[in-house]
Order: sequence, then C-alpha cells, then structure tokens
Amino acid sequence: MPLLTLRSYVSGAWAEGKGTLQTLVNPATEEPLAQAGTGGIDMAAALDHARTKGGPALRALSFAERGALLKAMSDVIQGHRDEILDLAVKNGGNTRSDAKFDVDGATFTLSSYAQIGQSLGDAKFVVDGEGIQLGRTPRFHGQHIAVPRRGVAVHINAFNFPAWGFAEKAAVALLAGVPVVSKPATSSGMVAHRITELLLEGAVLPEGALSLLMGSAGDVLEHLGPQDVVAFTGSGDTGIKIRSMPNVIRHSVRVNVEADSLNAAVLGPDAAPGSETYDFFLKDVLRDMTQKAGQKCTAIRRVLAPSSVAAQVRDDLVERLRSVTVGNPAQEGVRMGPVATADQLQDVRLGIGQLGADGRIVFGSAAEVQAVGAPARKGFFVSPVLVEVEAGAAAPTVHSREVFGPVATVVPYSGSAEDAAGIVARGGGGLVSSVYSEDVAFTSDLVLGLAPHHGRVFLGSAKIAEASPGPGTVLPLLVHGGPGRAGGGEELGGLRGLGFYLQRVALEGSRPVIDRITGNKGS
Amino acid sequence: MPLLTLRSYVSGAWAEGKGTLQTLVNPATEEPLAQAGTGGIDMAAALDHARTKGGPALRALSFAERGALLKAMSDVIQGHRDEILDLAVKNGGNTRSDAKFDVDGATFTLSSYAQIGQSLGDAKFVVDGEGIQLGRTPRFHGQHIAVPRRGVAVHINAFNFPAWGFAEKAAVALLAGVPVVSKPATSSGMVAHRITELLLEGAVLPEGALSLLMGSAGDVLEHLGPQDVVAFTGSGDTGIKIRSMPNVIRHSVRVNVEADSLNAAVLGPDAAPGSETYDFFLKDVLRDMTQKAGQKCTAIRRVLAPSSVAAQVRDDLVERLRSVTVGNPAQEGVRMGPVATADQLQDVRLGIGQLGADGRIVFGSAAEVQAVGAPARKGFFVSPVLVEVEAGAAAPTVHSREVFGPVATVVPYSGSAEDAAGIVARGGGGLVSSVYSEDVAFTSDLVLGLAPHHGRVFLGSAKIAEASPGPGTVLPLLVHGGPGRAGGGEELGGLRGLGFYLQRVALEGSRPVIDRITGNKGS
Repeated sequence: MPLLTLRSYVSGAWAEGKGTLQTLVNPATEEPLAQAGTGGIDMAAALDHARTKGGPALRALSFAERGALLKAMSDVIQGHRDEILDLAVKNGGNTRSDAKFDVDGATFTLSSYAQIGQSLGDAKFVVDGEGIQLGRTPRFHGQHIAVPRRGVAVHINAFNFPAWGFAEKAAVALLAGVPVVSKPATSSGMVAHRITELLLEGAVLPEGALSLLMGSAGDVLEHLGPQDVVAFTGSGDTGIKIRSMPNVIRHSVRVNVEADSLNAAVLGPDAAPGSETYDFFLKDVLRDMTQKAGQKCTAIRRVLAPSSVAAQVRDDLVERLRSVTVGNPAQEGVRMGPVATADQLQDVRLGIGQLGADGRIVFGSAAEVQAVGAPARKGFFVSPVLVEVEAGAAAPTVHSREVFGPVATVVPYSGSAEDAAGIVARGGGGLVSSVYSEDVAFTSDLVLGLAPHHGRVFLGSAKIAEASPGPGTVLPLLVHGGPGRAGGGEELGGLRGLGFYLQRVALEGSRPVIDRITGNKGS
Repeated sequence: MPLLTLRSYVSGAWAEGKGTLQTLVNPATEEPLAQAGTGGIDMAAALDHARTKGGPALRALSFAERGALLKAMSDVIQGHRDEILDLAVKNGGNTRSDAKFDVDGATFTLSSYAQIGQSLGDAKFVVDGEGIQLGRTPRFHGQHIAVPRRGVAVHINAFNFPAWGFAEKAAVALLAGVPVVSKPATSSGMVAHRITELLLEGAVLPEGALSLLMGSAGDVLEHLGPQDVVAFTGSGDTGIKIRSMPNVIRHSVRVNVEADSLNAAVLGPDAAPGSETYDFFLKDVLRDMTQKAGQKCTAIRRVLAPSSVAAQVRDDLVERLRSVTVGNPAQEGVRMGPVATADQLQDVRLGIGQLGADGRIVFGSAAEVQAVGAPARKGFFVSPVLVEVEAGAAAPTVHSREVFGPVATVVPYSGSAEDAAGIVARGGGGLVSSVYSEDVAFTSDLVLGLAPHHGRVFLGSAKIAEASPGPGTVLPLLVHGGPGRAGGGEELGGLRGLGFYLQRVALEGSRPVIDRITGNKGS
C-alpha cells in the first residue's frame, strides 16, 4: 500500500505537495505512517486568500457569532475524540493520558474562548477602557478601541501539542476576527491534519478563515506585510530567524514567540519532607518530568531545594522515577513514551551529557533504554534523567540549556527567597516558575522576586493541591509567555490574548459621534 | 572663546566625550553653538549603574511617590521655561511658538503622568484586571499583576522635540519604576542637555534614575539584555537597524519604534468650501505644514479632498501659504523657521523633487528660499511646498515617502469613505489620520476603515474646533504609535504606556495568599 500523503488546505482547496516529501513515523516503532510536503504551493496566494476571503467573513461576524464558531470547533473535536487520541498515540508517541492532555486542552481552550465571545455579545470590535474627557468640557472626548487587523495570522506550532497548540492559537485569532494559516510541526502533524479535515467536512468555519500547511513553511513568512502577524512556538533559534527576517522587520509584522524556558520549582524551607506541601511538590516535578516525555515548554527543568533537604529531594525523586515504565504507549502499563523524533532524541542525549558535566547524573542516562513493547533498537526512547549540582555551582548548562525531554536538575539553595530568586533569574526569562510553601512571607517575597522574569508564577500551597493541574498546564484565562529566553511573547490570558490580533486606536473628537461609533448610548 | 562642550551624565558623573566631537549649530545662521560626543564612555558601565542604582531606588517608591518625582521634574522645567525656550529657538530653529509647543508639551505630559501616579497611590506594581476563579471553588485563583522590569530603558529621541520627546518617554518609564538612559538627537540636544542639568542640580531624581548620552549612542544598545527596553523615535531605517541587532533579537529586548508616517487628513464630501468644517480642515493642514517647519511625525502629509473641491482646496491652501514668512525665528514676524540640519534640508529638497514627479508642485519649490533675518546663503531654509496629484494617480512617492519638512500633497478622491480609506491605507500604517466632516455616517464608516491602519484617528467636527489642538498634537492620555511603516509601536495612552516597561505575570494559586500579595483585602 503506498504511503498516505497528507495534503495542505490552501486557497480554498486541498493541495498535495510536490517534490520531496517528509515521512511521518510512529516514534515508538519508527513505522512510516504518512508523508507530507508543501513543495509547489503558492504561499503568497494562500495568504491573500485568507486575507480577502476569510478576513471579511470573520469581521462581518459579532464576537458572539465568532464565539459560536469556536464552540462548534470544540464540539467537532470532542465528537471525534477517540479517533484523534489514537492518532496522537500513534504519531506523537503519546500515552493515552498525554494525548488527552493535548486534545482535551484544545477543546477546553476553544470552549473558554467561545464563552469570552459570548460575553462580548454583538460587538465586532473591543471598546478599550473608559472614555476620556480631553478638553474643558465633556464634548472633546477620547476613546480607545481595538479593531481586527486586516491581515492574516500565520501560526507555526510545535511538535509537542498538535491539538492544543493549533487550538489555543486559532481560538484567539478567530475570535479577534483574523483568519488563520496554521502550520503544525510536520513530524507529529497527523492530529492537526485530521482536526482540520473534520472542521472542513463539517463546514464549521467560513471559507478562508482556516488554512493548513502540511509540511515546510516554505517562503510563507516572506510574504507577510504590515497588517499580518506570526505566532511561533518552538526553539529559540527558529524564533530568532523569524524575528530577523527583513520583511518582518521592515513592515513591523507582529511576531509572538514562545521559546525555550528553564522553568524552576522552588521548595520553601518550611515544606519539610513528608509534609503535604512537600508531596505536592514532588508530584508536580514527577509529572512534569514524565508527562509527554518531558516535552512541555512549561515543564519544570530546575528543582530548587534548600541545601538541608536537597539530598532528600533527590532520593525521593529517584525512588519515584524508578517506577516509571518507558515504552510503546500503545502498550498497557507504559507510563512514558518516546520523544517525538530521532533529532529530538539526539538533542536530548547531547543535553544530558552537558547537564551531567555541571554536576552528576543521579538517575537514568543518555544511553539506550529498554523500552517495553517496542521493536528492538527502534523508537526514540530515553529514560528519565535526574541531575544534581552542588550548592553554589556555576552550572552554566543547567541555567542556559533547555533539554527538551524527561530531564531535570536538583539545585540546592540557601533557603532564602532572595537567593532562590537570584538562581532562578539566571535562566534569563521563563514561562512559569513555582513556589511550594505555606509560609506566606516567603511566598510573597519569592513571587515578587520571580515576577519580572516570568509570564506566570504558580503558588504551590497544599490548599490548592487537589484543584490544581500544576504549573505545567497552561490555562486559557491566564497569560502564557515570558520575557528574554522564553521569547518575549504573550498568548491567551482571556481577552488579553486578543490584543495581538487587534490594532488599538485612539478616537479623538466629539463625544456624541464617538459614542455612536462605539455603540455607547451615553452616560 | 572655545566652543562649549556638552557633557554626558553617566555612572553618576558628568563625562566629556573623547575623540571627534560633533558641532551643534544654530540652523538659522549656521553659527556653531556647542560640541558634544560620547567617545570613551563605558556604555556597559553606564547601563549597569542605571540598573543597579536607579532601578532599586525607583522600585522602592510607590506610584504616588514616583508621580511626585514627575511633578517635580515638570516644575523644574516650568521654572526655567524662558531659558529653555531661548535654547530651542537658537539650537532648534524653532519659532517661539514652536518652542512652546515642545516645552509646554513636556511639562504637560510630566504633570499628566504625575497625576496618574497619584491615582495609583501606595501600590508599587499594577494589579491587572479582575481576579479569576480557576477551579470549582473560589480558592484556586488567578490574578495578573504587572511589575517593573529589572533592566534599564534606553530612550533614543528625535531631533524635532528635544523637550517633549525626552519627557514623554521618561515620564512613563520612571512612573513604571524603570531607570532611563536618554539620548537626544545631538544636533538639537542643547534643550535636553539643559533640562538634565537642571534636574540634576535640583536633585529631583534618585541617583541612577536618569542618565544622559550627549552624542552618538555608540555601542550602548549592544549591551542590552532580557530585562531591558529601548524606545526609539526617528527614521524607519534606524528603527530597522535597532530591531535587527543580534542581542536585541536573542534576548527579546523590548523595542518600541515610532517611525515614518504618511498621515492623512480627509475632507468629507459634506464639508463645503466656506463651511466651518472646511475652515477647520484648512487651518489644521496649514498648522501641520508650517509648525516646526513640518518636522512633526504626526503632521498631515496627504490632504484628501473630494475631486469636486480638490482644486478649491488647493487654491485656498496656496493663498494661505503665501502669507507664511520664512526666516530666522529670532526675528520678529517670522512664522516658520529652518529645518534642523543641513542633512535634513538636503533630504527634504530631494523629497520635494520626488513628490513633484508624482504630480505637480503648486506652491513653493526645492530651490533656495529668501529667509528673513538670516545671513545670506546661510541657514537650512526651505519654503512650504504644496504638491497636487491627479485623481486616481499611482503617485508612488506620495504614499511611501515621508518628506520631513513643510510639505504636503493634495490627493483627490471620489467622496466615498471606502475610497478614502483605501487611499489612506496605501501609506502602509500611520500614526494618525483625520476626518473632517459633520456627516456621522460618513465619519463612522471612514473612522472604522482607517482604524486598523493607525494608532489614532482624529474626528474633525466643527463642534470641537475650539477645544482641539488638531491631529498633530500628541496627548498623554491617548496612545501614540502606529502599525507597519509607523514602526508598530505604542507610547503614552495613560496607564497603557506603562505596559512597555512592566512585565505582566499571572499569579496562580490560593486566593488568600494572592490577595495578600496584591494588597486586595478580599471581597
């Protein structure tokens, strides 16, 4: 049987790529599953189609109507959940639990933004803040509004969340009224491809609102102009390439980057081993190391523990890591699957070696691992790895290299909030860090010390342990992004996320006319 | 008498530049006034001083206290207004009226932000939006806050507003809690230099909160890192260079650019010649052409008039331009001074030729002009120039080249809002455009058509004519910036402007702890 070729959806039609195609495999078995490529696709025409068909169609709708589209998208995904989960297990190396985290995150984000749309009602643009009296009398008036940009949003997604990554970006852009050209990572792209097929079969969205590039991005970004935006999740190096593009710079194309992040979890000095807070901390570290084989941009990479308990933390983590079964996620009882690609495996192995040189490896290794249920010498498996460094160690790799796999490092600190904040800040800006403590003074100090360097800070008190999904879960109503190394981007955060797709503009003039434009009947 | 050397203020001391110095002249007479340069200044040390001395000092203050600093700055400038106005006339080629526009704009902006500081009270960071219930019970809670970045703000200002440009950037950064390294354009830098001297003599600010680079920026931007920001106002080409810097890209240094803008004023079809609205329109176009010799980033460059009245608009503008006396602004009766530098004069002359090729010049020329009160063949004078193009003309220069002098072009349009919006959008993104009409339907349509392409839209109804400073005046409570060619930046806008200097971060955890951190006593 010839290999299935996944097509792109551009300019209102499915299009098969020409020339060399990339093969998508099962990362647990290396079995080829499909092939895809974008050779021969007219990217400029694809963008124009989105701008001229999708843009006007979306802008003609109210927020409530756009929200209803998102709800319908969520329902379609939910209605085919099992099929999509199967694809994620097969093409993503996901355990079923990993796959649910991705797919249910997608439907949850879409339905959250559907609700935001509903709450914005009949409006087609955002009225931003209160009106402002500009002169001596109320007549001379100012009012900010935020209107949909007239361009297209190109979304370049990472391989680790083919469903959620697609949905969290698309939900915000579509609600804002901006058409989307979505490019999943090719290697794990079967999920996003199938979701797009289902959405098109269901005619859920107006034509032009959603296009799909199945394969390389080609020259698509070279055709972006002043009203367009690009949102990218992936490696810092690719983010740098996008930001450096001459047309992106010249036309002030908006770029949002979510990149590398050395997220830290800090155990408070009050959280003694055996306490509820301590157990909550261990559980979150374990989850982040093994969920998705550690391939989460928000995963805890640096585990800060007071020097007095660092050895205990290490031992407790090692003990728990021993029970993690690595293998083919299609197999019953497997807790952690492979990483996504051969390249990722090589990079993770290299990174483990570099981290080890900063201190010592106390669990696992970069060597081959015995994987349950996988053919011999096949699959991109790596064991969980725990590294330990000395208190006060320079540990340059630990604080600068994101090893994108089931790898974390225990870093001792003095027990003071200031010391912890200083060590965490060595990461140069991150997506999220967390504090596990019941000491409110310590927590407050550390939270404010971490805040300038992060997009989110998680306060890990035992009092929220049952309700909490942990710091590694991105929530639609909280912003996601971080300064510096993390790319300087900001996504989600409820209504805040729409700002990236809107142009804020100050209206300055006579109050009655401005009120009529904004639909304010006066007060 | 040897030429006065203007020094920089860095690392807590005044420092004279080494090596070649640039000579500052009177642009009306070309008389040398002073010299300045930054050779030999250790820029990395200057930034570190600001970060380590100025940053902590500012962050230790509440918003109300930082606001009080701004009020004191405003008072110092106001207290030396005449002296500063004299410098602006001498070194800036400003008429006294031009100089007041700059200097009073500075004090107004500082005192406006002082008031914002007061209104924020004892807080040291911004609580951003409402709290969010994240779980089934209110205990699991989210709250966004926005805290001062731990870096330094480098402000690179344009030559046209040495007082206001300094103040509008510094006010926002200092109120946010971020120290400033300010670099005025050297050519007109005497005003910013004197203001800095006065502020230091008065010990208005904590040490390290304000530094001054008097001369080239040297390598200062190469030392910026993940917590730093740079705000630049000037040419698009320089903006591109800043954005392309490897360290700026790699560290996600925040960059705000205010660059070229082909601001348009659109006369509505209802605003018949002779009407109040028509006169308001003419007055605003005239002011923008001649104020500061047209050297305002917000000045009207494209004058859109319905085809049926375009010839009348042209004739009325020409008639008014005849009465504009060009000359040495130190001389009584001079209405318009020179442009700022020999380079600017050359660039404006070149631009006039290029614009003329798009249509025809109907007033003035690129040739030498008889300047009142200036030595023969001295001074950077150019006459006001009005260009006219045919309806529907391609006019590529008119819609792409900002000629930064007393130059505008009359562009006929059909009279429909859609047509006008389409023509204006050819500018590729601008700071501000304006609509002069009493027809609410026309105004609404055009405002919403212009909105995606601008940072501000001015509604020029006769009803606000008396209260209005016109579209060319930037107001502290309204955002200033624009997409695309205008640089994609956003400044001012009241509290909105602070966002650039703050890191927004989501706090996620137990509500009582978050409430305690944010000072919310609960509700």
